Amino acid sequence: MIKKWKINSTKEILRGRIFKYVSCSVTCEEENFDMEMDTLKFADWVNIVAITPDQQVVMVKQYRIGTDDLTVETPGGAVDKGEAPLAAAKRELEEETGYQSDEWEELGWVHPNPAFMNNKCFMYLAKNAVPSGTQSLDPFEVLDIEHYPLSEVPQMIKDETISHSLVISSFHFYYSK
Amino acid sequence: MIKKWKINSTKEILRGRIFKYVSCSVTCEEENFDMEMDTLKFADWVNIVAITPDQQVVMVKQYRIGTDDLTVETPGGAVDKGEAPLAAAKRELEEETGYQSDEWEELGWVHPNPAFMNNKCFMYLAKNAVPSGTQSLDPFEVLDIEHYPLSEVPQMIKDETISHSLVISSFHFYYSK
Repeated sequence: MIKKWKINSTKEILRGRIFKYVSCSVTCEEENFDMEMDTLKFADWVNIVAITPDQQVVMVKQYRIGTDDLTVETPGGAVDKGEAPLAAAKRELEEETGYQSDEWEELGWVHPNPAFMNNKCFMYLAKNAVPSGTQSLDPFEVLDIEHYPLSEVPQMIKDETISHSLVISSFHFYYSK
Repeated sequence: MIKKWKINSTKEILRGRIFKYVSCSVTCEEENFDMEMDTLKFADWVNIVAITPDQQVVMVKQYRIGTDDLTVETPGGAVDKGEAPLAAAKRELEEETGYQSDEWEELGWVHPNPAFMNNKCFMYLAKNAVPSGTQSLDPFEVLDIEHYPLSEVPQMIKDETISHSLVISSFHFYYSK
């Protein structure tokens, strides 16, 4: 039976805008070796499947530097220090889209990538989502709010309109409810 | 209609073991501002849902430094330079688990995280997977090969035994076939 390795020490190599790059000195006692491993420390994230009373999904279209392209994603963002994930989800949905919901449900959580990232992404369902709140974007956030029929989402994943693994994971939880 | 931003210049800040950290100078012409954005450049990845003739999924249990814990994942890894994703999937499955398949199928691909990562993860289905190959682990790769009934996977995602977003995305594609 495989066992956890032991972290002997960690060293912060670099602090980026959204992550810390930390090198870890680890021991694998089972096989008796030491090695250095890279990790990236992020805040936890939230992702929201927000559905309007007429069964439209509220999506965000924006430019993403990672892929140097526009993406269509469910709203989401980072959990602030000391903030509960559900509170972060409510805040992010309203700030990013202006939408609010009176019917929230936990969908589940994932590790975005346990191989080198420490954080979790918590997924929520927001039913009866309506534009009753106040959109409040960061100065450099530029996005379009779009609505797609919930029934079209499986096809949007198949035809690569939706390509973000965390968004696909959110919809997986939604469809497995 | 929202438009792509323009990358004016890029600067490599740091080269980690599995990524390059690159800072980009970008212009949003629509809103007329410039800014610096962080990106992480990775190789593309592959992920394999390998199913044995008796409907067991071949999984890998290993220590992951990101979450400092053991995980249960489908086999996967990085695509080598110049390698086709399907060739990488066949190679990774055999190297990591010793399994081979004579019936490969593309499931789809995702962006692990377009917000700051450039790469894609290609998902494959390997039917009739049998241990006819040669396992060939890296010197510091320590893992257990485990088999789970395919029918138990939805419950394993629900109870958080499977938590990796890319593995969940792979199974989403498998179930949407």
